[in-house]
Amino acid sequence: SCLSGSLSIPDPRLREALIQLEDGMQAGGKIKLTDAEKRLDDQLFKMKQEEMGRPDFLPAMHFFKARDLIRASPIFSVLQKMPKGGALHLHDFSIVDVEWLVKNVTYRPNCYMCFTDKQSVRFIFSSQWPKPRPQCSPWVLLENLRAKTGNTTELDNSIMNNLTLFTDEDPEAVYPSQDVVWDRFEQTFQAVWGLVTYVPVFRDYFYRGLGLFYADNVMYLEVRVLLPELYELDGSTHDKTFTLKVYQDVTEQFTAKYPDFFGVRFISSVPRAVNVSVMTEAVEEAMKLQKDFPHIMAGFDMVGREDKGRPLWYFREALSLPQERGINLPFFFHAGETDLEGTDVDQNLLDSLLFNTSRIGHGFALLRHPVAKDLSRKSKVAVEVCPISNQVLKLVKDLRNHPAAVLLSENHPMVISSDDPAVFGAFGLSFDFYEAFVGFGGFKSRLGSLKQLAINSIRYSSLSPVQQEKALVLWNTKWNKFVSENAL
Amino acid sequence: SCLSGSLSIPDPRLREALIQLEDGMQAGGKIKLTDAEKRLDDQLFKMKQEEMGRPDFLPAMHFFKARDLIRASPIFSVLQKMPKGGALHLHDFSIVDVEWLVKNVTYRPNCYMCFTDKQSVRFIFSSQWPKPRPQCSPWVLLENLRAKTGNTTELDNSIMNNLTLFTDEDPEAVYPSQDVVWDRFEQTFQAVWGLVTYVPVFRDYFYRGLGLFYADNVMYLEVRVLLPELYELDGSTHDKTFTLKVYQDVTEQFTAKYPDFFGVRFISSVPRAVNVSVMTEAVEEAMKLQKDFPHIMAGFDMVGREDKGRPLWYFREALSLPQERGINLPFFFHAGETDLEGTDVDQNLLDSLLFNTSRIGHGFALLRHPVAKDLSRKSKVAVEVCPISNQVLKLVKDLRNHPAAVLLSENHPMVISSDDPAVFGAFGLSFDFYEAFVGFGGFKSRLGSLKQLAINSIRYSSLSPVQQEKALVLWNTKWNKFVSENAL
Ligand SMILES: [Zn+2]
Ligand SMILES: [Zn+2]
Repeated sequence: SCLSGSLSIPDPRLREALIQLEDGMQAGGKIKLTDAEKRLDDQLFKMKQEEMGRPDFLPAMHFFKARDLIRASPIFSVLQKMPKGGALHLHDFSIVDVEWLVKNVTYRPNCYMCFTDKQSVRFIFSSQWPKPRPQCSPWVLLENLRAKTGNTTELDNSIMNNLTLFTDEDPEAVYPSQDVVWDRFEQTFQAVWGLVTYVPVFRDYFYRGLGLFYADNVMYLEVRVLLPELYELDGSTHDKTFTLKVYQDVTEQFTAKYPDFFGVRFISSVPRAVNVSVMTEAVEEAMKLQKDFPHIMAGFDMVGREDKGRPLWYFREALSLPQERGINLPFFFHAGETDLEGTDVDQNLLDSLLFNTSRIGHGFALLRHPVAKDLSRKSKVAVEVCPISNQVLKLVKDLRNHPAAVLLSENHPMVISSDDPAVFGAFGLSFDFYEAFVGFGGFKSRLGSLKQLAINSIRYSSLSPVQQEKALVLWNTKWNKFVSENAL
Repeated sequence: SCLSGSLSIPDPRLREALIQLEDGMQAGGKIKLTDAEKRLDDQLFKMKQEEMGRPDFLPAMHFFKARDLIRASPIFSVLQKMPKGGALHLHDFSIVDVEWLVKNVTYRPNCYMCFTDKQSVRFIFSSQWPKPRPQCSPWVLLENLRAKTGNTTELDNSIMNNLTLFTDEDPEAVYPSQDVVWDRFEQTFQAVWGLVTYVPVFRDYFYRGLGLFYADNVMYLEVRVLLPELYELDGSTHDKTFTLKVYQDVTEQFTAKYPDFFGVRFISSVPRAVNVSVMTEAVEEAMKLQKDFPHIMAGFDMVGREDKGRPLWYFREALSLPQERGINLPFFFHAGETDLEGTDVDQNLLDSLLFNTSRIGHGFALLRHPVAKDLSRKSKVAVEVCPISNQVLKLVKDLRNHPAAVLLSENHPMVISSDDPAVFGAFGLSFDFYEAFVGFGGFKSRLGSLKQLAINSIRYSSLSPVQQEKALVLWNTKWNKFVSENAL
């Protein structure tokens, strides 16, 4: 009966054609692989079969529990070596491991700490004893505290716990709700603030951040930056231009040493909790920065929890200023990082597109908005997908259910990024690539998808077309080297 | 500035038009509401605002924890009163509360129980002491056991725990994985088996099942049935035709008493764990039943855990028999009840469509298959969405992330059903409607969506076009009564 077949069975050729059609629709589905790529693809597929056969499916687990298992996985080690292109959704003060902040930065001279009412900590570097801080204990000089404390390891660990959400305890118990996890999330940023806005630390922090991404085979970054006024040991402060210049200096210093690192561009960003007049000023300032530093400034965004902030439409007049004045200020709005369907905030997706956003940060709710989804696809407005961030901040538990699994299956414009890797206990991009490759894609996602995602990260960057071509040439060299070194 | 507006702000009329366009695309988005419906819609919207304002968002919680809170919600009470049309995805032995099984059925004379090695129980009714059952303790007559036991409440509760997955303990702890929960799920069916396949109980069970749906304002059912050989007290058994005739009798008895109950149709189903020759026989038998009982037989399906069973394509020759012989045997395949993307089982979605399935059971993975999704939409093959089932069986945790939220936003052909309500501690359809209305839809889903879902349940039923019109007339009368009684 195998030989004869049956006319009434759906034609196996039609079936195969439909399967192929669907495979071809996914990200990278139409990329023709070279022979070496095919061999690597087969290896990856075998690794994936082993990975998916294990009883604890890692993308279904909370990242805090899965992290060390992911790191031990052979797929992860290939993904680390893979040239991933650019990381387009990152925030300024969560790109460096908190261990370095504690073990290096807090050990520097003149570092003071106090304990807040909300069980967090604050820091300041100061040549004199700093003035008391409201809602905080009296300052202690860390040098003194460590001299007095027998167990500095314990002290250091407790400091570290304040700078990250990562925990060895049960994350579901520690962070039972979105409110709790967001509250702690915001506390960590306030805790690192006094450390990283001190000029010498700021330089070192950023340099180290670039190093971490470079080591993870990421060649280009776009970073949302608050551009704080940096301070010196005597308490004097600098303006935003100074901050941006430090970014520029450090980037140049880094690329001088590592010429195959392509560079960094910055998206100036402002908390969405501000009022209209502050927002208007922020837009004005962003326009000025964009004019003065067009080669490194990419545009403008708002940051902070969408669900608790004002919707984009509330700020529509401020956001219209650039167009009104004929000034180019690209937007890179966070939008749709919510599961509150049908609220004002949920309208941010559509509004970000109406304001011609260049990309959409997260876009978690995009699938539930067919009109916005269609606009984003047709206008090639890429979604910046940050799987670990969405899981830790409790939008989704099992990453197979992440909406980007659907976007990936349709080759929707998208890139993978890591948002705030240090706060999530991650680094670089490889952990998020792991979640996407194994979690979203299942067996369907193969080397072609990975290649597409890397190419997307350059194509959907804010780089000019000429710069994109240059970046692609550089990436391509890296890619071919990676393939030839890893294909058996 | 409100007066003047600004030319560069995206035109608010365009914005409004796009919002309207998107709203209109959702299920029921184009239904024009009457004035009374509008008033009821406003009431529901206000209830939803209160519901969504509470800190514990119920569709994000496990149903076992949320059930009693849902039952206390004003929205639930409206949904209970609402005429929901038909329940199209149900299984024969999980439509009646297990409390009734224990408190009524196991108290009947001649009821024996034994304890299995796997910590479950088995039952039999018998006029003589039954023969020992392998892998089970010696039989005890429940009447004797209860006479000896001081605390029958405790005994009854422990029996009940074996007949349902529902538990007051932490469900995440009791059912840590899909494997564990599916194993217990299958055990519950084996546990009820000996109770419900005894002829007198079988009649009462089904009659009571109809009553529960009727009381929940469901007017029509399509039930997947295994059609077991029923037994008598003396151990003699009947054939499948007898079973079907009992179903028919009881249905007639019920509709005679409640003429506004529209009826029941049956989908004969076979475990997908069987081999090819058993499957072939099952298809042959289904064709015969379909021919002999065309008015009550709707078609054929396979049941059991998709991830562990054979894919549809494995049975392609058996499934081709009806077409080969020119016999009409509609299929109602479970497909895509999986999160294992890219596996053979994951191909069931496409294959079910190639075999011209009339509906898709669950279709949880449909969004990740754009070709299958498109086929299903264009061929009007409705997806039978069972939210609570998918949550309890651990496909998704927060029901806002259920793929049907997307299907609903696009008015994809779909119906809401409850799969195995008794095993999940639910009854009827109202709990699943609650999860869909509040969980999938957020603020976007309103009375129009509910109306559409009810209408869908008739339009996508197996009823003939003439019968559908009749059913719609009946439903419409009920709907208008519901609206006029509940709109303030
Ligand atoms: Zn972000
Ligand atoms: Zn089912």
